[in-house]
Amino acid sequence: MAPAADGKVTGLLAATFTPFTAQGEVNLSVIGPYVDYLKEKQGVKGIFVNGTTGESMSLSVAERKVLAEEWCLKAKGKMDSTIVHVGCMSLKDSQDLARHAAEIGADGIAVISPSFFKPKSAHALRRFLQEVALAAPNLPFYYYTIPAFTGVNVPVRDVIEDIEKLIPTFRGVKFSGSDLLDFGQCVSYSQPHWSVLYGVDEQLLAALAMGANGAVGSTYNYMGCYVNQLISAFETGDLVTARTIQFKIQELVGYAIKLGFDIGVNKQLMMEVSGLPLGPPRLPVMPCPPNHSKLIIQKYHSIFD
Amino acid sequence: MAPAADGKVTGLLAATFTPFTAQGEVNLSVIGPYVDYLKEKQGVKGIFVNGTTGESMSLSVAERKVLAEEWCLKAKGKMDSTIVHVGCMSLKDSQDLARHAAEIGADGIAVISPSFFKPKSAHALRRFLQEVALAAPNLPFYYYTIPAFTGVNVPVRDVIEDIEKLIPTFRGVKFSGSDLLDFGQCVSYSQPHWSVLYGVDEQLLAALAMGANGAVGSTYNYMGCYVNQLISAFETGDLVTARTIQFKIQELVGYAIKLGFDIGVNKQLMMEVSGLPLGPPRLPVMPCPPNHSKLIIQKYHSIFD
Amino acid sequence: MAPAADGKVTGLLAATFTPFTAQGEVNLSVIGPYVDYLKEKQGVKGIFVNGTTGESMSLSVAERKVLAEEWCLKAKGKMDSTIVHVGCMSLKDSQDLARHAAEIGADGIAVISPSFFKPKSAHALRRFLQEVALAAPNLPFYYYTIPAFTGVNVPVRDVIEDIEKLIPTFRGVKFSGSDLLDFGQCVSYSQPHWSVLYGVDEQLLAALAMGANGAVGSTYNYMGCYVNQLISAFETGDLVTARTIQFKIQELVGYAIKLGFDIGVNKQLMMEVSGLPLGPPRLPVMPCPPNHSKLIIQKYHSIFD
Amino acid sequence: MAPAADGKVTGLLAATFTPFTAQGEVNLSVIGPYVDYLKEKQGVKGIFVNGTTGESMSLSVAERKVLAEEWCLKAKGKMDSTIVHVGCMSLKDSQDLARHAAEIGADGIAVISPSFFKPKSAHALRRFLQEVALAAPNLPFYYYTIPAFTGVNVPVRDVIEDIEKLIPTFRGVKFSGSDLLDFGQCVSYSQPHWSVLYGVDEQLLAALAMGANGAVGSTYNYMGCYVNQLISAFETGDLVTARTIQFKIQELVGYAIKLGFDIGVNKQLMMEVSGLPLGPPRLPVMPCPPNHSKLIIQKYHSIFD
Repeated sequence: MAPAADGKVTGLLAATFTPFTAQGEVNLSVIGPYVDYLKEKQGVKGIFVNGTTGESMSLSVAERKVLAEEWCLKAKGKMDSTIVHVGCMSLKDSQDLARHAAEIGADGIAVISPSFFKPKSAHALRRFLQEVALAAPNLPFYYYTIPAFTGVNVPVRDVIEDIEKLIPTFRGVKFSGSDLLDFGQCVSYSQPHWSVLYGVDEQLLAALAMGANGAVGSTYNYMGCYVNQLISAFETGDLVTARTIQFKIQELVGYAIKLGFDIGVNKQLMMEVSGLPLGPPRLPVMPCPPNHSKLIIQKYHSIFD
Repeated sequence: MAPAADGKVTGLLAATFTPFTAQGEVNLSVIGPYVDYLKEKQGVKGIFVNGTTGESMSLSVAERKVLAEEWCLKAKGKMDSTIVHVGCMSLKDSQDLARHAAEIGADGIAVISPSFFKPKSAHALRRFLQEVALAAPNLPFYYYTIPAFTGVNVPVRDVIEDIEKLIPTFRGVKFSGSDLLDFGQCVSYSQPHWSVLYGVDEQLLAALAMGANGAVGSTYNYMGCYVNQLISAFETGDLVTARTIQFKIQELVGYAIKLGFDIGVNKQLMMEVSGLPLGPPRLPVMPCPPNHSKLIIQKYHSIFD
Repeated sequence: MAPAADGKVTGLLAATFTPFTAQGEVNLSVIGPYVDYLKEKQGVKGIFVNGTTGESMSLSVAERKVLAEEWCLKAKGKMDSTIVHVGCMSLKDSQDLARHAAEIGADGIAVISPSFFKPKSAHALRRFLQEVALAAPNLPFYYYTIPAFTGVNVPVRDVIEDIEKLIPTFRGVKFSGSDLLDFGQCVSYSQPHWSVLYGVDEQLLAALAMGANGAVGSTYNYMGCYVNQLISAFETGDLVTARTIQFKIQELVGYAIKLGFDIGVNKQLMMEVSGLPLGPPRLPVMPCPPNHSKLIIQKYHSIFD
Repeated sequence: MAPAADGKVTGLLAATFTPFTAQGEVNLSVIGPYVDYLKEKQGVKGIFVNGTTGESMSLSVAERKVLAEEWCLKAKGKMDSTIVHVGCMSLKDSQDLARHAAEIGADGIAVISPSFFKPKSAHALRRFLQEVALAAPNLPFYYYTIPAFTGVNVPVRDVIEDIEKLIPTFRGVKFSGSDLLDFGQCVSYSQPHWSVLYGVDEQLLAALAMGANGAVGSTYNYMGCYVNQLISAFETGDLVTARTIQFKIQELVGYAIKLGFDIGVNKQLMMEVSGLPLGPPRLPVMPCPPNHSKLIIQKYHSIFD
């Protein structure tokens, strides 16, 4: 899963958190050290910014722009790929962000389905995606599905049917769902220059077996180094080792879920592990309660140290 | 249910559609005639703008501002109340719109729960609402719940507990849900200066029986005149007549649902009945297919003519 | 809503609990006093036995038969109508119970949709109901819908379309759902000799406004006397009184829901109020924890005493 | 994945269909040839009878007994393991069937969660399972989870915590769900003498990667021979071949889902492939429409021939 010469995205991408100040404003100063941390300590080769982990839906368009710009700037020469998520509830906003992503030199854009008004068919969703893609006609385009958040259950396989006729820049999918029938059908249909990236970190091994080209997830912010080992083990056919690492990740995630695993808990864990000052989440996400913070970091160390 | 001297909102409010040009840009020129139509032909006394019916989540912040401004301008002196919905996925955007609503002379603001990141408790939701309300500290504030769209099922009764301690401007709820246990508990807890407004048009009579102070809905754009008769009949104790009208509305809505009742179909029906050029909906909502357009207007006339 | 001469079911029916011994066997000896209690203390005029409240799905066919027999025997001359629910997951079992209900002199049978294999269309559901009805061709037949338990969301209005052509004995619906669009359409379509009975006790007033002919519910076991007052007030046009009673019921039910309102809690409350030894529920329903038992009965007395 | 000397269940088990006559009565005469077909043509080594595929919830207890008896009789000496599913909505019925399974020489029993009354906690579910297991204290016991049918989402990992203290005969899980976090945690916790069997056929490869010990499914009735190749390829590290076969299965299942893949369609496909006269499904499941029957078998041949 070495980076492909043609820019095909493979391997591990971290879905980055958005740093805020204590007052809740975006904190650009953390982004440089954040990129270095991911590269040096976690061995992560790409980033997926302003996505779900980045609380993009809680950001204004202006905030998303300055963040995207800083991520692209600081990642330049350090990350193999910086994908900027530009999906919004509003098509206008998404188009605005897509144009901006092109201007600032993003390596690609990703778009989630709108979820307040849910597309009623694959056709409606494809039309929405097409209109966004047209605003950045030279950028690789990725469709991002995460049904647990959006409630949109259009099979991805239906979305990508002959998709390059509609979106010539289409290059793949960030698939953050647990329907591996749909996932497998996407892998099977995938073109050689596409990337099918998996996004449910706690079952990555399953997706690798089904043919995933890489992975994008929030836990790679602080467990990327272990997951790189998982991927290496998988690639050399050592399923026992791969499984052992996967089960450790599952132990942590399973524990976190019992605590109420949301962006607040997730971000806190990243702060504890990395030492980066990421600040609180933004409402309606609540900060991680201090006792949960203590428990989750203890669990992390008990598993990985 | 006459308008109360103290500004308490009662009676019928139309949740307005957003007029677009054929090219999909907001079309302010229709708003003046639209207000006149609602007042003169439908007997509607208030409007709820930039809500779900207005496709607000598909609009940019800038678009919502020019729309709100035009609605307030044209409704002045003609409508008893113009409530501007300022809820967004992003707290920043909601605060921005709340401040703007105060500047342009709105009679009140309404806020929906964010739904991409769903508040995990009544507390988180109340904190979000409070932060928006603080941006317009002199405007009556309404909480707007519509679980079928948001997937947020926090009981409204829990949201409004002692709410004036958090939000001194709190004045009521737009309740667009079918849980009449929660609704009744809200009515029972409601303060005399609050309005509990019901928003599921096809079962308004049930909510009136439970004590609703008024109604906000999309179908009042084109059936307001009949619903005013329903309300009058209810108020005089003539349930047989009230029920007869309610059943007609149910017949239309039930028929529309079988056709796929979304904003596209709804907007088309309004255009057919009113003659106002409202334009297409915005993606991901698709325009009403011509054959459905024909069927739904035929049904309307067969029921009401 | 006096009992109709032609046997049309109106007014209040209690959905009865199944009495068990402490060892978990059915306890027929309680049924006689139970009927007397309902009639004398609660003013209930009909019973719906072996339904959801009666834990019928947790009973064997043999148990359901002896229970039905005892209920019919003891209710004879005391209740205006005894409806025996004979719905099962298995068509064979339902037919067996339907035949038995006819033999023991039930006033009618009710059938729920199977819910493990969910009917995929109104047609499939109607065919199932028809096959059961054929096994008791002289008994009034009621369709019983309770989507929160079954997950079956076929609109009842679709089920009852021209239903007497399929089921000549069809006489009505026990509608235990909160979709009042569907409910209203059923009322509107209902034939004069049918009964549309509502089953969500905490919002009965809403259903009465929509035209319900009567009500069947579990809380009428211990709040029937108050609900009879609610119905009387509604019938005389005194909505304020009706609403006051409805809100009291909502206060109790809302409180119970926060405690985890299931058959265990419900049955315990009935035991506390009535003094009847109904025994524990059957697994997988768990008995009401003693502290919850204390709280719920305190609440009951604080509201109604 | 050779059969373990100690009776540990591994490899492929077919979840058998229940043969009916054209009149809808159970047809025992097909069972002998059915077992031979599975062994000889599909290479299946075990059977799981009276499960979801077998429409057990649509059968009476008496029917389940005669079926279980015949399956055990005919499978003797031909199948490595015959597991009889004895789960019912009613604990009494489940206990009755468990006792019967012991009498007729079943190799093990499996129990699904009741789903009309859903257990409100792992504790309630464990208590239910325990009471069934006690009725057959010498038979290996398997917990069967299939959330898409039951709506019961208690994590299996919580169910099996220290489970042998409650159920000494516990020997594993039939896991027919897509939550591979829960699945992986079960594999990780699994004891050496337990079997974690996967039941979502179209993503078996993913589960094998996560450590599944075997598989139970309906499609192995007619695709067992191909899945045996998939498993062999997986075990020798040939993921490319395994994936190719998995994708073929996904193509068929994905196609069937678009046609409305239920027991009716599934059973029809088995009849077409095997030539065995399995008869129609039982209501509320409808027979496969003839045009769908033709399409699905064409698809099968186009993929596998």
